[in-house]
Amino acid sequence: MTGLYAGPIQDLIEELGRLPGIGPKSAQRIAFHLLKVSDREAGRLARAVTELKARITFCTRCFNVAEVRTEGGAECAICTDPRRDNHVLCVVEEARDLVAVERTGEFKGRYHVLGGAINHLEGIGPDQLRVRELLLRLQADPVQELIVCTNPNLEGDATALYLVRLLADVDITVTRLASGLPVGSDLEYADELTLGRAIEGRRPLGA
Amino acid sequence: MTGLYAGPIQDLIEELGRLPGIGPKSAQRIAFHLLKVSDREAGRLARAVTELKARITFCTRCFNVAEVRTEGGAECAICTDPRRDNHVLCVVEEARDLVAVERTGEFKGRYHVLGGAINHLEGIGPDQLRVRELLLRLQADPVQELIVCTNPNLEGDATALYLVRLLADVDITVTRLASGLPVGSDLEYADELTLGRAIEGRRPLGA
Repeated sequence: MTGLYAGPIQDLIEELGRLPGIGPKSAQRIAFHLLKVSDREAGRLARAVTELKARITFCTRCFNVAEVRTEGGAECAICTDPRRDNHVLCVVEEARDLVAVERTGEFKGRYHVLGGAINHLEGIGPDQLRVRELLLRLQADPVQELIVCTNPNLEGDATALYLVRLLADVDITVTRLASGLPVGSDLEYADELTLGRAIEGRRPLGA
Repeated sequence: MTGLYAGPIQDLIEELGRLPGIGPKSAQRIAFHLLKVSDREAGRLARAVTELKARITFCTRCFNVAEVRTEGGAECAICTDPRRDNHVLCVVEEARDLVAVERTGEFKGRYHVLGGAINHLEGIGPDQLRVRELLLRLQADPVQELIVCTNPNLEGDATALYLVRLLADVDITVTRLASGLPVGSDLEYADELTLGRAIEGRRPLGA
Protein backbone atom coordinates (compact mmCIF):
# COMPACT_ATOMS: atom_id res chain seq x y z
CA MET A 1 0.00 0.00 0.00
CA THR A 2 2.84 2.37 0.72
CA GLY A 3 3.55 4.73 -2.12
CA LEU A 4 -0.02 4.70 -3.38
CA TYR A 5 -0.93 7.62 -1.20
CA ALA A 6 0.87 10.93 -1.34
CA GLY A 7 2.90 11.65 1.81
CA PRO A 8 0.47 13.90 3.70
CA ILE A 9 -2.43 11.46 3.20
CA GLN A 10 -0.34 8.52 4.37
CA ASP A 11 0.88 10.53 7.39
CA LEU A 12 -2.65 11.38 8.45
CA ILE A 13 -3.87 7.81 7.95
CA GLU A 14 -1.07 6.62 10.22
CA GLU A 15 -1.81 9.20 12.92
CA LEU A 16 -5.54 8.41 12.81
CA GLY A 17 -4.76 4.68 12.98
CA ARG A 18 -3.11 5.21 16.37
CA LEU A 19 -6.41 6.35 17.89
CA PRO A 20 -8.44 3.78 19.83
CA GLY A 21 -11.11 2.01 17.80
CA ILE A 22 -9.86 3.30 14.45
CA GLY A 23 -8.55 0.64 12.09
CA PRO A 24 -6.75 1.18 8.77
CA LYS A 25 -10.01 1.27 6.79
CA SER A 26 -11.64 3.85 9.05
CA ALA A 27 -8.46 5.93 9.06
CA GLN A 28 -8.47 5.94 5.26
CA ARG A 29 -12.15 6.84 5.16
CA ILE A 30 -11.68 9.74 7.58
CA ALA A 31 -8.61 11.04 5.72
CA PHE A 32 -10.52 11.13 2.43
CA HIS A 33 -13.45 12.74 4.19
CA LEU A 34 -11.15 15.48 5.49
CA LEU A 35 -9.84 16.03 1.96
CA LYS A 36 -13.37 16.83 0.87
CA VAL A 37 -14.45 19.14 3.69
CA SER A 38 -13.61 22.84 3.76
CA ASP A 39 -10.26 24.04 5.07
CA ARG A 40 -12.22 25.76 7.81
CA GLU A 41 -13.82 22.55 9.05
CA ALA A 42 -10.53 20.61 9.00
CA GLY A 43 -8.85 23.53 10.74
CA ARG A 44 -11.44 23.38 13.52
CA LEU A 45 -10.54 19.74 14.16
CA ALA A 46 -6.79 20.39 14.19
CA ARG A 47 -7.30 23.35 16.51
CA ALA A 48 -9.57 21.37 18.84
CA VAL A 49 -6.79 18.80 19.33
CA THR A 50 -4.21 21.51 20.01
CA GLU A 51 -6.52 23.40 22.38
CA LEU A 52 -7.30 20.23 24.31
CA LYS A 53 -3.66 19.65 25.07
CA ALA A 54 -2.98 23.30 25.85
CA ARG A 55 -5.97 23.95 28.08
CA ILE A 56 -6.80 20.65 29.77
CA THR A 57 -4.75 18.91 32.42
CA PHE A 58 -5.49 16.57 35.31
CA CYS A 59 -6.81 17.73 38.68
CA THR A 60 -3.99 17.65 41.22
CA ARG A 61 -6.44 16.40 43.84
CA CYS A 62 -8.68 13.73 42.27
CA PHE A 63 -7.05 13.34 38.80
CA ASN A 64 -10.24 14.21 36.98
CA VAL A 65 -9.74 16.40 33.91
CA ALA A 66 -9.35 20.07 34.79
CA GLU A 67 -8.80 23.32 32.95
CA VAL A 68 -5.30 24.73 33.11
CA ARG A 69 -5.22 27.84 35.29
CA THR A 70 -2.50 30.46 35.31
CA GLU A 71 -2.27 30.57 39.12
CA GLY A 72 -0.84 27.02 39.35
CA GLY A 73 -2.43 23.98 41.01
CA ALA A 74 -5.20 22.97 38.64
CA GLU A 75 -8.24 21.59 40.46
CA CYS A 76 -11.30 20.26 38.69
CA ALA A 77 -14.83 21.69 38.83
CA ILE A 78 -15.94 19.01 41.29
CA CYS A 79 -13.05 19.42 43.74
CA THR A 80 -13.56 23.19 43.82
CA ASP A 81 -17.34 22.89 44.31
CA PRO A 82 -18.08 23.60 48.01
CA ARG A 83 -21.51 21.93 47.79
CA ARG A 84 -20.08 18.44 47.26
CA ASP A 85 -20.06 16.05 50.21
CA ASN A 86 -16.56 15.40 51.58
CA HIS A 87 -17.70 12.28 53.43
CA VAL A 88 -18.31 10.07 50.41
CA LEU A 89 -15.61 9.30 47.89
CA CYS A 90 -16.31 7.53 44.60
CA VAL A 91 -13.33 5.68 43.15
CA VAL A 92 -13.38 5.28 39.36
CA GLU A 93 -10.92 3.90 36.84
CA GLU A 94 -10.95 6.76 34.35
CA ALA A 95 -12.21 10.33 34.14
CA ARG A 96 -14.83 9.26 31.60
CA ASP A 97 -16.27 6.85 34.19
CA LEU A 98 -16.66 9.83 36.50
CA VAL A 99 -18.72 11.54 33.81
CA ALA A 100 -20.95 8.45 33.59
CA VAL A 101 -21.58 8.59 37.35
CA GLU A 102 -22.19 12.35 37.25
CA ARG A 103 -24.77 11.84 34.52
CA THR A 104 -26.95 9.78 36.86
CA GLY A 105 -27.30 12.77 39.18
CA GLU A 106 -27.33 10.27 42.08
CA PHE A 107 -23.96 11.08 43.56
CA LYS A 108 -23.10 14.25 45.44
CA GLY A 109 -19.74 13.30 46.94
CA ARG A 110 -16.20 13.61 45.62
CA TYR A 111 -14.20 11.43 43.26
CA HIS A 112 -10.84 9.78 42.93
CA VAL A 113 -9.62 8.66 39.51
CA LEU A 114 -7.28 5.67 39.74
CA GLY A 115 -6.04 5.92 36.17
CA GLY A 116 -6.86 2.30 35.34
CA ALA A 117 -7.48 -1.04 37.00
CA ILE A 118 -5.25 -3.81 38.31
CA ASN A 119 -4.25 -6.02 35.40
CA HIS A 120 -1.39 -8.38 36.16
CA LEU A 121 -1.16 -9.60 32.57
CA GLU A 122 -0.37 -6.07 31.41
CA GLY A 123 1.85 -5.37 34.41
CA ILE A 124 -0.53 -2.89 36.01
CA GLY A 125 -0.46 -3.23 39.79
CA PRO A 126 -1.43 -0.84 42.59
CA ASP A 127 1.85 1.03 42.11
CA GLN A 128 0.87 1.95 38.56
CA LEU A 129 -2.46 3.34 39.78
CA ARG A 130 -3.10 6.35 42.00
CA VAL A 131 -3.57 4.23 45.14
CA ARG A 132 -0.93 6.03 47.18
CA GLU A 133 -2.62 9.34 46.40
CA LEU A 134 -5.93 7.78 47.51
CA LEU A 135 -4.47 6.76 50.87
CA LEU A 136 -3.10 10.25 51.41
CA ARG A 137 -6.53 11.71 50.71
CA LEU A 138 -8.22 9.29 53.11
CA GLN A 139 -5.85 10.52 55.83
CA ALA A 140 -6.48 14.19 55.06
CA ASP A 141 -10.24 14.20 54.26
CA PRO A 142 -13.12 13.16 56.54
CA VAL A 143 -14.17 10.27 54.28
CA GLN A 144 -16.68 7.84 55.80
CA GLU A 145 -17.66 5.81 52.75
CA LEU A 146 -15.68 4.75 49.75
CA ILE A 147 -17.82 3.63 46.79
CA VAL A 148 -15.72 1.52 44.46
CA CYS A 149 -17.06 2.25 40.96
CA THR A 150 -14.55 0.25 38.96
CA ASN A 151 -15.90 -1.64 35.94
CA PRO A 152 -17.82 -4.88 36.60
CA ASN A 153 -15.15 -7.00 34.90
CA LEU A 154 -12.12 -9.04 35.96
CA GLU A 155 -9.78 -6.07 36.34
CA GLY A 156 -12.35 -3.86 38.03
CA ASP A 157 -13.28 -6.62 40.45
CA ALA A 158 -9.61 -7.28 41.27
CA THR A 159 -9.10 -3.59 41.95
CA ALA A 160 -12.18 -3.43 44.18
CA LEU A 161 -11.06 -6.49 46.12
CA TYR A 162 -7.59 -5.02 46.55
CA LEU A 163 -9.01 -1.78 47.94
CA VAL A 164 -11.34 -3.61 50.33
CA ARG A 165 -8.40 -5.56 51.76
CA LEU A 166 -6.13 -2.53 51.86
CA LEU A 167 -8.68 -0.58 53.89
CA ALA A 168 -9.80 -3.47 56.12
CA ASP A 169 -8.21 -1.87 59.21
CA VAL A 170 -9.34 1.66 58.44
CA ASP A 171 -12.67 2.89 59.79
CA ILE A 172 -14.20 3.54 56.36
CA THR A 173 -17.15 1.69 54.83
CA VAL A 174 -16.13 0.34 51.45
CA THR A 175 -19.03 -0.39 49.07
CA ARG A 176 -19.21 -1.66 45.51
CA LEU A 177 -21.68 -0.92 42.72
CA ALA A 178 -24.44 -3.53 42.43
CA SER A 179 -24.07 -6.00 39.60
CA GLY A 180 -27.21 -7.29 37.94
CA LEU A 181 -29.58 -6.97 35.04
CA PRO A 182 -29.56 -3.67 33.17
CA VAL A 183 -32.83 -1.75 33.51
CA GLY A 184 -35.08 -2.45 30.54
CA SER A 185 -33.18 -5.58 29.52
CA ASP A 186 -34.59 -9.01 28.79
CA LEU A 187 -33.99 -11.85 31.24
CA GLU A 188 -34.04 -14.21 28.30
CA TYR A 189 -31.01 -12.58 26.71
CA ALA A 190 -28.97 -11.97 29.87
CA ASP A 191 -25.63 -13.79 30.00
CA GLU A 192 -25.19 -16.36 32.79
CA LEU A 193 -22.63 -14.28 34.71
CA THR A 194 -24.84 -11.23 34.87
CA LEU A 195 -27.92 -13.26 35.78
CA GLY A 196 -25.83 -15.11 38.39
CA ARG A 197 -24.75 -11.82 39.92
CA ALA A 198 -28.33 -10.57 39.87
CA ILE A 199 -29.49 -13.65 41.79
CA GLU A 200 -26.58 -13.41 44.21
CA GLY A 201 -27.36 -9.74 44.83
CA ARG A 202 -31.15 -10.20 45.12
CA ARG A 203 -32.89 -7.85 47.50
CA PRO A 204 -36.00 -8.29 49.64
CA LEU A 205 -39.06 -6.67 48.11
CA GLY A 206 -40.77 -3.96 50.09
CA ALA A 207 -37.69 -3.48 52.26
CA MET B 1 -24.31 15.88 29.14
CA THR B 2 -23.40 19.47 28.31
CA GLY B 3 -21.48 21.17 31.06
CA LEU B 4 -20.00 17.96 32.38
CA TYR B 5 -17.01 18.31 30.11
CA ALA B 6 -14.77 21.33 30.15
CA GLY B 7 -15.03 23.42 26.96
CA PRO B 8 -11.99 22.14 25.06
CA ILE B 9 -12.98 18.49 25.65
CA GLN B 10 -16.53 19.12 24.50
CA ASP B 11 -15.26 21.00 21.43
CA LEU B 12 -13.01 18.15 20.41
CA ILE B 13 -15.74 15.54 20.99
CA GLU B 14 -18.02 17.54 18.70
CA GLU B 15 -15.40 17.89 15.97
CA LEU B 16 -14.55 14.19 16.14
CA GLY B 17 -18.24 13.32 16.04
CA ARG B 18 -18.52 14.95 12.61
CA LEU B 19 -16.11 12.41 11.12
CA PRO B 20 -17.59 9.45 9.25
CA GLY B 21 -18.06 6.32 11.36
CA ILE B 22 -17.37 8.08 14.65
CA GLY B 23 -20.31 8.20 17.05
CA PRO B 24 -20.52 10.13 20.33
CA LYS B 25 -19.05 7.24 22.35
CA SER B 26 -16.03 6.81 20.05
CA ALA B 27 -15.51 10.56 19.96
CA GLN B 28 -15.44 10.64 23.76
CA ARG B 29 -13.07 7.69 23.91
CA ILE B 30 -10.67 9.29 21.42
CA ALA B 31 -10.77 12.66 23.21
CA PHE B 32 -9.83 11.04 26.53
CA HIS B 33 -7.16 9.02 24.77
CA LEU B 34 -5.66 12.24 23.40
CA LEU B 35 -5.68 13.73 26.90
CA LYS B 36 -3.47 10.88 28.02
CA VAL B 37 -0.94 10.83 25.17
CA SER B 38 2.05 13.16 25.02
CA ASP B 39 1.71 16.67 23.64
CA ARG B 40 4.07 15.54 20.88
CA GLU B 41 1.81 12.72 19.74
CA ALA B 42 -1.33 14.89 19.79
CA GLY B 43 0.60 17.59 17.97
CA ARG B 44 1.50 15.14 15.22
CA LEU B 45 -2.19 14.41 14.64
CA ALA B 46 -3.18 18.09 14.56
CA ARG B 47 -0.31 18.82 12.18
CA ALA B 48 -1.17 15.88 9.92
CA VAL B 49 -4.67 17.31 9.45
CA THR B 50 -3.32 20.78 8.67
CA GLU B 51 -0.66 19.43 6.31
CA LEU B 52 -3.23 17.35 4.45
CA LYS B 53 -5.31 20.39 3.66
CA ALA B 54 -2.29 22.52 2.80
CA ARG B 55 -0.47 20.04 0.60
CA ILE B 56 -3.13 17.87 -1.03
CA THR B 57 -5.60 18.93 -3.66
CA PHE B 58 -7.44 17.22 -6.49
CA CYS B 59 -5.87 16.45 -9.86
CA THR B 60 -7.14 18.93 -12.45
CA ARG B 61 -7.26 16.13 -15.03
CA CYS B 62 -8.71 13.01 -13.37
CA PHE B 63 -9.73 14.39 -9.92
CA ASN B 64 -7.59 11.89 -8.06
CA VAL B 65 -5.78 13.33 -5.04
CA ALA B 66 -2.63 15.20 -6.00
CA GLU B 67 0.11 17.10 -4.23
CA VAL B 68 -0.09 20.87 -4.44
CA ARG B 69 2.68 22.23 -6.68
CA THR B 70 3.90 25.79 -6.76
CA GLU B 71 3.82 25.99 -10.56
CA GLY B 72 -0.04 25.79 -10.68
CA GLY B 73 -2.12 23.04 -12.32
CA ALA B 74 -1.79 20.13 -9.93
CA GLU B 75 -1.76 16.77 -11.70
CA CYS B 76 -1.66 13.45 -9.86
CA ALA B 77 1.12 10.87 -9.97
CA ILE B 78 -0.86 8.68 -12.38
CA CYS B 79 -1.73 11.43 -14.88
CA THR B 80 1.91 12.54 -15.01
CA ASP B 81 3.25 8.98 -15.42
CA PRO B 82 4.17 8.55 -19.13
CA ARG B 83 4.12 4.74 -18.84
CA ARG B 84 0.36 4.58 -18.27
CA ASP B 85 -1.86 3.55 -21.18
CA ASN B 86 -3.92 6.41 -22.60
CA HIS B 87 -6.28 4.03 -24.38
CA VAL B 88 -8.00 2.58 -21.32
CA LEU B 89 -9.83 4.76 -18.81
CA CYS B 90 -11.12 3.45 -15.50
CA VAL B 91 -14.05 5.39 -14.06
CA VAL B 92 -14.36 5.24 -10.26
CA GLU B 93 -16.64 6.94 -7.76
CA GLU B 94 -14.03 8.16 -5.30
CA ALA B 95 -10.25 8.52 -5.14
CA ARG B 96 -10.08 5.75 -2.56
CA ASP B 97 -11.68 3.37 -5.08
CA LEU B 98 -8.83 4.24 -7.43
CA VAL B 99 -6.40 3.15 -4.73
CA ALA B 100 -8.24 -0.17 -4.43
CA VAL B 101 -7.88 -0.76 -8.20
CA GLU B 102 -4.19 0.28 -8.12
CA ARG B 103 -3.54 -2.22 -5.35
CA THR B 104 -4.51 -5.11 -7.64
CA GLY B 105 -1.66 -4.21 -10.00
CA GLU B 106 -3.94 -5.33 -12.85
CA PHE B 107 -4.64 -1.97 -14.40
CA LYS B 108 -2.15 0.12 -16.35
CA GLY B 109 -4.44 2.73 -17.88
CA ARG B 110 -5.64 6.09 -16.60
CA TYR B 111 -8.47 7.03 -14.24
CA HIS B 112 -11.38 9.37 -13.93
CA VAL B 113 -12.90 10.06 -10.52
CA LEU B 114 -16.60 10.93 -10.74
CA GLY B 115 -16.87 12.21 -7.18
CA GLY B 116 -19.80 9.95 -6.27
CA ALA B 117 -22.57 7.96 -7.91
CA ILE B 118 -26.04 8.78 -9.18
CA ASN B 119 -28.44 8.80 -6.25
CA HIS B 120 -31.80 10.36 -7.01
CA LEU B 121 -32.98 10.14 -3.41
CA GLU B 122 -30.11 12.35 -2.33
CA GLY B 123 -30.43 14.61 -5.34
CA ILE B 124 -27.19 13.48 -6.97
CA GLY B 125 -27.56 13.31 -10.73
CA PRO B 126 -25.00 13.41 -13.57
CA ASP B 127 -24.68 17.19 -13.14
CA GLN B 128 -23.42 16.75 -9.60
CA LEU B 129 -20.75 14.30 -10.81
CA ARG B 130 -17.76 14.95 -13.06
CA VAL B 131 -19.51 13.57 -16.14
CA ARG B 132 -19.01 16.69 -18.24
CA GLU B 133 -15.28 16.57 -17.51
CA LEU B 134 -15.31 12.90 -18.53
CA LEU B 135 -16.88 13.72 -21.89
CA LEU B 136 -14.29 16.45 -22.52
CA ARG B 137 -11.52 13.94 -21.78
CA LEU B 138 -13.02 11.38 -24.13
CA GLN B 139 -12.92 13.99 -26.90
CA ALA B 140 -9.31 14.94 -26.18
CA ASP B 141 -7.72 11.58 -25.31
CA PRO B 142 -7.45 8.48 -27.57
CA VAL B 143 -9.61 6.35 -25.21
CA GLN B 144 -10.75 3.03 -26.69
CA GLU B 145 -12.14 1.32 -23.60
CA LEU B 146 -13.93 2.75 -20.60
CA ILE B 147 -14.02 0.40 -17.59
CA VAL B 148 -16.81 1.46 -15.26
CA CYS B 149 -15.56 0.60 -11.76
CA THR B 150 -18.43 2.06 -9.77
CA ASN B 151 -19.54 0.10 -6.72
CA PRO B 152 -21.68 -3.02 -7.30
CA ASN B 153 -24.71 -1.48 -5.61
CA LEU B 154 -27.86 0.39 -6.67
CA GLU B 155 -26.14 3.76 -7.13
CA GLY B 156 -23.07 2.33 -8.81
CA ASP B 157 -25.20 0.28 -11.20
CA ALA B 158 -27.36 3.30 -12.05
CA THR B 159 -24.24 5.32 -12.79
CA ALA B 160 -22.79 2.55 -14.98
CA LEU B 161 -26.06 2.24 -16.88
CA TYR B 162 -26.20 6.00 -17.38
CA LEU B 163 -22.67 6.05 -18.79
CA VAL B 164 -23.35 3.11 -21.12
CA ARG B 165 -26.40 4.94 -22.55
CA LEU B 166 -24.60 8.27 -22.74
CA LEU B 167 -21.77 6.74 -24.76
CA ALA B 168 -23.93 4.47 -26.92
CA ASP B 169 -23.17 6.51 -30.05
CA VAL B 170 -19.48 7.00 -29.33
CA ASP B 171 -16.96 4.48 -30.66
CA ILE B 172 -15.69 3.45 -27.23
CA THR B 173 -16.11 0.03 -25.63
CA VAL B 174 -17.74 0.44 -22.22
CA THR B 175 -17.16 -2.44 -19.80
CA ARG B 176 -18.22 -3.08 -16.23
CA LEU B 177 -16.48 -4.95 -13.43
CA ALA B 178 -17.63 -8.56 -13.05
CA SER B 179 -20.03 -9.21 -10.18
CA GLY B 180 -19.86 -12.58 -8.48
CA LEU B 181 -18.56 -14.53 -5.55
CA PRO B 182 -15.56 -13.07 -3.73
CA VAL B 183 -12.45 -15.24 -4.07
CA GLY B 184 -12.11 -17.53 -1.05
CA SER B 185 -15.73 -17.11 -0.01
CA ASP B 186 -18.27 -19.79 0.81
CA LEU B 187 -21.12 -20.48 -1.60
CA GLU B 188 -23.23 -21.45 1.38
CA TYR B 189 -23.00 -17.98 2.89
CA ALA B 190 -23.32 -15.96 -0.32
CA ASP B 191 -26.38 -13.71 -0.48
CA GLU B 192 -28.91 -14.43 -3.22
CA LEU B 193 -28.14 -11.28 -5.20
CA THR B 194 -24.42 -12.01 -5.39
CA LEU B 195 -24.98 -15.66 -6.22
CA GLY B 196 -27.55 -14.64 -8.83
CA ARG B 197 -25.03 -12.29 -10.42
CA ALA B 198 -22.39 -15.01 -10.33
CA ILE B 199 -24.70 -17.39 -12.18
CA GLU B 200 -25.72 -14.69 -14.64
CA GLY B 201 -22.07 -13.91 -15.33
CA ARG B 202 -20.88 -17.52 -15.53
CA ARG B 203 -18.00 -18.18 -17.90
CA PRO B 204 -17.09 -21.25 -19.95
CA LEU B 205 -14.31 -23.30 -18.36
CA GLY B 206 -11.13 -23.75 -20.37
CA ALA B 207 -11.98 -20.75 -22.54
